[in-house]
Amino acid sequence: MGKNNKQVKAITSMEENFTQWYTDICLKAEMVDYASVKGFMIMRPYGYAIWENMVSIMDGMFKKTGHENVAMPLLIPESLLKKEGELVNGFAPEVAWVTAGGADPLEERLAVRPTSETMFCDHWAHVLHSWRQLPMLYNQWCSVVRWEKTTRPFLRSREFWWQEGHTIHETAAEAMAETEQQLYCYVDFCRDALAIPVLTGRKTDKEKFAGAEATYTIEAMMKDGKALQSGTSHYFGDKFSRAYEVTFTGRDNKLEYPHQTSWGSTTRLIGAVIMTHGDNNGLILPPPIAPVQVVVIPVAQHKEGVLDAAHVLEGRLKAMGLRAKTDDSEQSNGWKYAEYEMKGVPLRVEIGPKDIEKDQCVIVRRDNGEKTFVPLDELETKVQELLKAIHTNLYESAKKRLEENTYACTTVEEVKTNMEQRKGFAKTMWCGEEACEIAMKELAGVSSRCIPFDQEKIGDVCPVCGKPAKKMVVWGVAY
Amino acid sequence: MGKNNKQVKAITSMEENFTQWYTDICLKAEMVDYASVKGFMIMRPYGYAIWENMVSIMDGMFKKTGHENVAMPLLIPESLLKKEGELVNGFAPEVAWVTAGGADPLEERLAVRPTSETMFCDHWAHVLHSWRQLPMLYNQWCSVVRWEKTTRPFLRSREFWWQEGHTIHETAAEAMAETEQQLYCYVDFCRDALAIPVLTGRKTDKEKFAGAEATYTIEAMMKDGKALQSGTSHYFGDKFSRAYEVTFTGRDNKLEYPHQTSWGSTTRLIGAVIMTHGDNNGLILPPPIAPVQVVVIPVAQHKEGVLDAAHVLEGRLKAMGLRAKTDDSEQSNGWKYAEYEMKGVPLRVEIGPKDIEKDQCVIVRRDNGEKTFVPLDELETKVQELLKAIHTNLYESAKKRLEENTYACTTVEEVKTNMEQRKGFAKTMWCGEEACEIAMKELAGVSSRCIPFDQEKIGDVCPVCGKPAKKMVVWGVAY
Repeated sequence: MGKNNKQVKAITSMEENFTQWYTDICLKAEMVDYASVKGFMIMRPYGYAIWENMVSIMDGMFKKTGHENVAMPLLIPESLLKKEGELVNGFAPEVAWVTAGGADPLEERLAVRPTSETMFCDHWAHVLHSWRQLPMLYNQWCSVVRWEKTTRPFLRSREFWWQEGHTIHETAAEAMAETEQQLYCYVDFCRDALAIPVLTGRKTDKEKFAGAEATYTIEAMMKDGKALQSGTSHYFGDKFSRAYEVTFTGRDNKLEYPHQTSWGSTTRLIGAVIMTHGDNNGLILPPPIAPVQVVVIPVAQHKEGVLDAAHVLEGRLKAMGLRAKTDDSEQSNGWKYAEYEMKGVPLRVEIGPKDIEKDQCVIVRRDNGEKTFVPLDELETKVQELLKAIHTNLYESAKKRLEENTYACTTVEEVKTNMEQRKGFAKTMWCGEEACEIAMKELAGVSSRCIPFDQEKIGDVCPVCGKPAKKMVVWGVAY
Repeated sequence: MGKNNKQVKAITSMEENFTQWYTDICLKAEMVDYASVKGFMIMRPYGYAIWENMVSIMDGMFKKTGHENVAMPLLIPESLLKKEGELVNGFAPEVAWVTAGGADPLEERLAVRPTSETMFCDHWAHVLHSWRQLPMLYNQWCSVVRWEKTTRPFLRSREFWWQEGHTIHETAAEAMAETEQQLYCYVDFCRDALAIPVLTGRKTDKEKFAGAEATYTIEAMMKDGKALQSGTSHYFGDKFSRAYEVTFTGRDNKLEYPHQTSWGSTTRLIGAVIMTHGDNNGLILPPPIAPVQVVVIPVAQHKEGVLDAAHVLEGRLKAMGLRAKTDDSEQSNGWKYAEYEMKGVPLRVEIGPKDIEKDQCVIVRRDNGEKTFVPLDELETKVQELLKAIHTNLYESAKKRLEENTYACTTVEEVKTNMEQRKGFAKTMWCGEEACEIAMKELAGVSSRCIPFDQEKIGDVCPVCGKPAKKMVVWGVAY
């Protein structure tokens, strides 16, 4: 690693300052740039390419289960937004308002969408007539704006990119099944595309989405032990349908209200990838979302045959359907190694005159630095095997960390001490009262992450009030 | 076609009222819905699926020539927008302004992007240092807002979806080559994906993009003879670079300004498809962008073996890589035929008990209604052949119409009479003076569409002022 020292020193180490380490990676890996507009971000080609790969995989998953994409208007009339009281109260403090079109002030101000439940309901009220049209399984890829006070690239910014699924169903049971199905879609996506293990559960009433009857969540644990809410799925019952007068003629010929869900995941998942897998040399990308999965470096490229050999390897990798490239620029090998480590490229293939003589190449893994000499005729098999091994290793390491840093507590003090020392997920029993949830936040500095689906009994009473416990809750310090 | 009468009558005929015919198709084919926000549109699943197919093809073309996607902020500070005077003057009357974030008024109002040249320049000013980083070939898929007075689905709406390419180059020659390359990319896309022939040329100074040195355009001719500007490519020289202080250290170690281009195409292309190919039974979609390329209709589906046979055909079509579906709903055959005609599905495959007996199916073309009996073992060959034939027929028909309705004129009166009778493209000579361009608009009701690349000499003098002519211009009535 000697050659990389210069580059490595260019980013703060995560042990020294995790926040700065994160920001350094975002900038040095050329994923984002800060914009002139305060709190907004620019996704540069490398960051956007990661997002494109995520979108492509997730979009395929949605379509497989019958979802269709649509595009709703960016701007929402204030009166429309106000029809459902809880939603507007939840979002009002962070809405950006359009008040003029050209030289003319608008009669009614328009919200830049913070989320689109209202628009979907308004549209359904126009087009839904009969139970035969149900379910309507819609999704939208777009950006939304929320006027956040403190912002950080990917994690929290005034504009972010996301998908928002919105569905309506004939029955409550079907809508509930959809809510769960889409939550597990996120679980699968995080595991198979991002190599991120997550905790699943239901949000407390305090933490649920404004206007939802129930919010389900996936929570990931970052390398600093903090929690990152990584996707949510909401069940609305017929609350919005009633507020927006969405009705249909049922099988019994009576007018009924459909049952509704929405579910979303965002560019914040890129932040999750950085903080789950990254190290002090930079980003580490799981292969399914890496813009470049294998980079070929010709060593001593001025020597006869080296460049040709490198391009042959690149061609073979591309023929496998991989995203591969050769870096035949004039930069030094050391610079190149550091550059592709910073960018988290999963595999580096080196080929030089000596390798050519021996009919071999060298393959280096980004995740653990392991170096393997590979006979050229085994390239395809070995690369496939290594990419798979990288994904498994990333996932298993993250899972081990998640498990090791999830611990049961029976007192508030225990939660507090553990949180101060190592963050992580603290499991405690809970009486179900919001007052105790708020007290836990004040006393131990944690918010409830979720009421996990996998319940355990780790005591009989709520550690805050001492009254009989109803559920086990997981607490953490969240991004 | 007897069975379709009911559905067919549901849309206005194009001969009776072309505008209403257009709107009817947009709504009846379930492509769009009007939104509660005046002048905005909703793209429903069928409309959006067409756009997705366009995006996928075009995005592939851009990437093949080295372009990378990025995401820029939605909102632009007024001061930033104002740095280039012509641009802001061009767009100011139609900008939507954000003036508050949550409860707080903003110190500086923010424009909802009408186009993003300013943001790209601002970003480049941060990240560009050396000639080695050039060219930067960027593209963005997003929606933009322009406060139009009169709006129509796809053709002109306050929000529309588009791609905006933005590139910077070391030299003027390279930027000019990019401008041309991307214009011809649009020409290829219109021909190969949309079956739309276009006229190519340069916009007059009056019609060019605000702030551009030169604007190139592709102009299509709709079935009513009106012109639709379908894509533009702009050359900026170093004008924006200077205004936004975008500089780099050149090969000679001196500070230089890069040369810039931008190019865009929008959801208006969906309008172009409707008005180029559609008929009184509805939409006609060219196969590359059709969400369903082949629909299989089981005839007498309650009879034994029919549904199975239909699904076998669907499976074979999908195995060819086609987008195919079987409609086994309880609707009548007549309803189904009309429905898929309305939606413009290129091929309909019918299979019933008699066909099964004879080892055949019936294939019906949407473009000309031609019916062919096809032996089942020839399905793949025949479908491939027919899809190709449809595309060729659509393109050739449109090309014939374009040619037949492009005519040379030597007097203003001649332009006026022709325009009143049949619209189309009128070619005349032109002295190059804007006064004559304006006069032509007043006298004959036409705007200059472009100065075609393919120049002809159809006279010596400008038909307006009688002075010596410099160029041939094409005029039309535009959407």
